[in-house]
This record gives sequence, C-alpha cells and structure tokens, in this order.
Amino acid sequence: MDLMEPFASEVDFSRGVIEPVGDVIQRHLSDMSGMYADADAVDRILSQGDRLIYEVYAADLPEGEGQVLYCTTILYPGRVGEELHMTKGHFHAQRDRAEVYLGLAGEGYLLLQADDGTVRSVPMRSGTAAYVPPHWAHRTVNTGDEPFIFFAAWPGDAGHDYGTIEETGFAKLLVARDGEPTLVDNPKAESMRNRRQTDG
Amino acid sequence: MDLMEPFASEVDFSRGVIEPVGDVIQRHLSDMSGMYADADAVDRILSQGDRLIYEVYAADLPEGEGQVLYCTTILYPGRVGEELHMTKGHFHAQRDRAEVYLGLAGEGYLLLQADDGTVRSVPMRSGTAAYVPPHWAHRTVNTGDEPFIFFAAWPGDAGHDYGTIEETGFAKLLVARDGEPTLVDNPKAESMRNRRQTDG
Repeated sequence: MDLMEPFASEVDFSRGVIEPVGDVIQRHLSDMSGMYADADAVDRILSQGDRLIYEVYAADLPEGEGQVLYCTTILYPGRVGEELHMTKGHFHAQRDRAEVYLGLAGEGYLLLQADDGTVRSVPMRSGTAAYVPPHWAHRTVNTGDEPFIFFAAWPGDAGHDYGTIEETGFAKLLVARDGEPTLVDNPKAESMRNRRQTDG
Repeated sequence: MDLMEPFASEVDFSRGVIEPVGDVIQRHLSDMSGMYADADAVDRILSQGDRLIYEVYAADLPEGEGQVLYCTTILYPGRVGEELHMTKGHFHAQRDRAEVYLGLAGEGYLLLQADDGTVRSVPMRSGTAAYVPPHWAHRTVNTGDEPFIFFAAWPGDAGHDYGTIEETGFAKLLVARDGEPTLVDNPKAESMRNRRQTDG
C-alpha cells in the first residue's frame, strides 16, 4: 500500500491565503453574470470592466473516498444592483455529503437551499462554525465592508454539482436594504423553475 | 426524507470552547497513565492529585457516512517526566479515513504513526492546517507554555480505534530536552510490541 505523506500548509486568517499555494480559483462577475438577479446592473458593471468576486485557495489533495478536502474562500465586499456579492453555490454531486465552514474574518451569511426550494440562512463571522448538512445546496454572501474569509472542509468523494443552481437559482436573494442584509424572494427563480419544467 | 436543519456554533479561537456546548471530553493523567513512558513520574504526580491534560469540545452531530464531524481540542502545557503533554492518539476504525487539523492558538506537534511503526512529526501553530492522510494514527503534543488549541474535521464514518495505540504506544516520544522539543525513541515501544506478538 502506498502511504500518503502527512503535510502542513499555513492559512493566513486575515488574508485568507493558503501557502504553499496549491489550486487557486478566481471567479469574476463575467463567470457568473446570469446568477445575479439584476441583469442591467451586471451589464453596467461589465461595460466598465470585469470584477473579481471571490477567490478559492484549495489544498493540494486528491479527491476520493476517505480524504478530507479543504480550502479557504475570500469573498470580496460589494453589490450587483442591490444584491450582495456571493459565491456560485452548489450541491454536492453525492447529495448526502455534508460540509463544515469556519469563519476567519469579515461578515457574511451561509445560504442553503433544499431540493424542494426551502431556504435557510446562517450569519457568520470570525469563529462561526456553520454546518451544511447532507442534501443542502450552499452559497455564501458577503454582508460586510471587508473581505469575508472562511475555511471549509468536506468529504473527498462529495464532488460538485454547480449546474442545478445555475439553472434554477436560489429561491431567495440576500440584498442590502436600508443598510441591512435582507432576504427577499428571487424574482427570477419562479420563471427559471417554470422554464425548467417546460424544458422537461 | 428527513432533512437535517443547518446550524451554527461559535468557536472561541483563544479559549478553544465551542458554544453552545455539546459533548465535552476531559482527559486526566489517570485516564492515560500507562501511555507516558516515565511510570515513576506518573506515580509522583498522581500521588499529589490528578491533572487535566486536555479537553475536547465536539459538535453535536450524528456519526455516519456523509457527515463531517468536528471538534476543538485544548491541550494544556506541561510535562510528565521529560515527556510533553499529549493526547491519547488513535487510528480511525475505518483506517482509510483522513482528518484535517487547523491550529488556533499555542504551539504543538502533530505526531503520526503508520502501521509499520513509521513516525512523522508536523509542527503546528495558529494557522497551520495539518493533514492526517488515510491510514495514519495521530496524536498531538503541546510544545509551548500556553494551551495548544486546534480545530479538527473528519468523516462521519471514520470511527475511533484507541486500543491499538494503548497497546503498542508510539515508536517515538516528544520530550523537552535543553528547552527544545526533541523526538526520541520510546523505550517502552519495543517491549510493548514484543509482548503483543507473544500474546498473539
């Protein structure tokens, strides 16, 4: 049997960077333009240049049963229209795989959605351990003025299903209203669900 | 299908406490007296009273495939003879389940041992993400003067096998020598392994 060697990396809690740097994913507004509700606001921003929404620093680990994958996410503050900056969000490909988040800096929300459209929101800050139970899609939202930074760990055989959320959206949006993060119905969600049903 | 509700808890990075408090395990010297190499030192300490070596604050989660269990550990500074305070250490019952540690405060080492007696040591401090790959027994050691505090996450179907390490010990000890943490051969390990072989 080939044993994997133990190793360590250093997580900068205030900047979110993991060193040595392994896989880094950068998501710009152009990578997720259809996911924000206000298409005019997306177009206005993109006409002046793209915007970095978030970065993910992933540990250099193989996927597979038994491993525990981990990463940090740096979600930059800002809005698209009145909608707050967010990650794409996903189900796990193996839907019954859970995940745990640990807030390191800044402020945000974990948004979760079940297959039937039920939405839950969990506020997070430094020190908050937020649990994504099996079968919940999950996305994070920055509700503060600083980068929202968190650590995440999940089973190595979970996989990612981004497509379902790209098609249906979340049923709720987190918007800035009178300076307060507020959960509102997603105007696009019903039409997207209807279209999806029509498409079969 | 019964969905589990998402939830959050708060981890105090400087004290190690998780609130609301779920399952708390306290390990005193009397719970692990046979695990330290210097039996006379153990007896001397216990004759004057027991000593709290470490505490574990575990999240209130069910075990099982797909879950991601997590806890904090607060490992108090000190020595038993020249051996530094440590946790009991264990293999996972499902040997191929990994684990990730994240240092929150203080200083310590992650010690790992493979089935063939190979030992590895990984220094940890606040921000160190230390990976326990599949098939390695793991124990932590406090090498500083303050509580060594870390967060850990592992698969819900990993289980714990403490018995193997209780029987054989680790092949190496971490001792304080000239004020420096130093890895030395465990004088008890060979006799324990021989006894185990004789016992069949």
